Amino acid sequence: MAMQGCTLEVDLVSLRELVHARLESYVAAASALDASDCPETLRAAMAYSLLAGGKRMRPVLVLLACEACGGAIESAIPAACAIEMIHTYSLIHDDLPAMDDDDYRRGRLTNHKVFGEAMAILAGDALLTLAFEVIARDTQPAAVAAACCADLASAAGWCGMVAGQVADIEGEQRGEVEGRRLKDEGEDREVGIGVSAPQPSTLNPRPSALAQLEAIHRRKTGRLLTSAVTLGGRVGQADPDLLRRLEEFGKRVGLAFQIADDLLDVTGDAAKLGKGVGKDATLGKKTYPALLGVEESRRKADALIDEACALLEPLGEKSRKLVELARFVTKRDH
Amino acid sequence: MAMQGCTLEVDLVSLRELVHARLESYVAAASALDASDCPETLRAAMAYSLLAGGKRMRPVLVLLACEACGGAIESAIPAACAIEMIHTYSLIHDDLPAMDDDDYRRGRLTNHKVFGEAMAILAGDALLTLAFEVIARDTQPAAVAAACCADLASAAGWCGMVAGQVADIEGEQRGEVEGRRLKDEGEDREVGIGVSAPQPSTLNPRPSALAQLEAIHRRKTGRLLTSAVTLGGRVGQADPDLLRRLEEFGKRVGLAFQIADDLLDVTGDAAKLGKGVGKDATLGKKTYPALLGVEESRRKADALIDEACALLEPLGEKSRKLVELARFVTKRDH
Repeated sequence: MAMQGCTLEVDLVSLRELVHARLESYVAAASALDASDCPETLRAAMAYSLLAGGKRMRPVLVLLACEACGGAIESAIPAACAIEMIHTYSLIHDDLPAMDDDDYRRGRLTNHKVFGEAMAILAGDALLTLAFEVIARDTQPAAVAAACCADLASAAGWCGMVAGQVADIEGEQRGEVEGRRLKDEGEDREVGIGVSAPQPSTLNPRPSALAQLEAIHRRKTGRLLTSAVTLGGRVGQADPDLLRRLEEFGKRVGLAFQIADDLLDVTGDAAKLGKGVGKDATLGKKTYPALLGVEESRRKADALIDEACALLEPLGEKSRKLVELARFVTKRDH
Repeated sequence: MAMQGCTLEVDLVSLRELVHARLESYVAAASALDASDCPETLRAAMAYSLLAGGKRMRPVLVLLACEACGGAIESAIPAACAIEMIHTYSLIHDDLPAMDDDDYRRGRLTNHKVFGEAMAILAGDALLTLAFEVIARDTQPAAVAAACCADLASAAGWCGMVAGQVADIEGEQRGEVEGRRLKDEGEDREVGIGVSAPQPSTLNPRPSALAQLEAIHRRKTGRLLTSAVTLGGRVGQADPDLLRRLEEFGKRVGLAFQIADDLLDVTGDAAKLGKGVGKDATLGKKTYPALLGVEESRRKADALIDEACALLEPLGEKSRKLVELARFVTKRDH
């Protein structure tokens, strides 16, 4: 990261390492879970994706939100690991031939390319299931465990992440149909939202395309990110008012994160990002910079983070790291 | 069913209808769950499989186990619906092209043939996720909800149902490899367990093939069936001793059910079964009749049911229906 010597960087690295170590022990062959009934191939497929690395943003949000409410980070570990298992399962399934059909993810072969499609489907299913086992069994007290299961299931399910994935796929299909129609009429092919594209400007932000984009992001990525924050709050024994505050914080940080992601694809340093730049534009994907322009997108993301951080002011010092992480979302360059 | 006028038949029909009605309301478009964020296509795909019908054996076991412990049937409805959602998701994924690649299930097109493969994968994911939301949100008290989530997740996951599916697939793959080797050596092709096949007899029950068969069934179907019984017990506030008793009951009933299933394929009336007879033998599948013979298989199943019912004797009258259901498992002809 570019923020040399910053304590946030130190904190994030140590939290990521903590999460990685705990994820490892959850899926280790000789784990305390007594996984002797689990076929080694299945365990290896689950571990391949779960331990692949990544920013671990969702679990870190769980831990820091717990701490912000005065809870102990250790008590939030099961929920943190569970949300990463769910994020991981969604990536395995998203990469499948019938879905996005990707052979590589972050420079590594995708799960189904290594283990075969059947095993990848099952590894994803097993990770999704394990997430709930981990929370239900390892989170105390029971009322918090049950509330966390309900929260996470709602965020990940048919009105949340899965709904967003369906909306994204159907938006692409509509775009392809629209694209073929426009092509017949001599216009450029559009993929994604399926709305023809005059030059984006702040005077003409094309509300329906923007609304569609937000409707996809809100469910596909936003719900789970928000859930990370509320899970941490629940484990930290936040009262209903504080949970609502955390939820509003999470929604804003989640959307800002998505805008920042879109911006990095346009403006980012390919070497630091670890992937090619300009890929979204090449695919004709509807993104915030494409619809609002780079400047307006930056302003929107910054405003969201300002609002989010203001929501946490009453929490005081305990929420400092969580606030810093939110600020980092729009300052990162990879 | 052939047991005309029997009160068990009446009870089962009414319980099935109750379960079906409650499943319907869980996935209805205008359901109390406020499913407005769920794309209609996704909801339709989930409902297509969930409301397809079937014996509803797992949910009925949940309800009757709860009643056997002195609990109210209504209180066990969420857990009963959840286990059927999990059973349904597993069927959707099992039918996928990368898995068993079936176009039909019970005479109806499979989910992916109607909605496409992507939607089928996601509908399965959504049902699995919804199961945990339903239990966690709608089961009281929280301690029971959390315990049910842990129980169900363990039974359905990487050491349970998913593990069994992997073991089954890998057993088939080993059988195909072994079959090719045996074919080269001039013996009959074997599919499934991959062990060459002298005539089955009670004197030579081929323990390793039998052990492999049980290891698959125990996880692929047994864990979830057992969980149905323990879920009902948990909702019925069973103490740990009673839960252990119910678990032992469930294991035996589950295995007896699988043996009875194998027997029906050999001996059943195709018209009543609603599917062809002799399919297992055609596929060269390892089954109890194939390994032990029909008579020995029947004896084994009957013995398991006798043991199971004996375990429930201390529960008295409240467990009558559950005991009758267990007895019916080995008496059914379809």
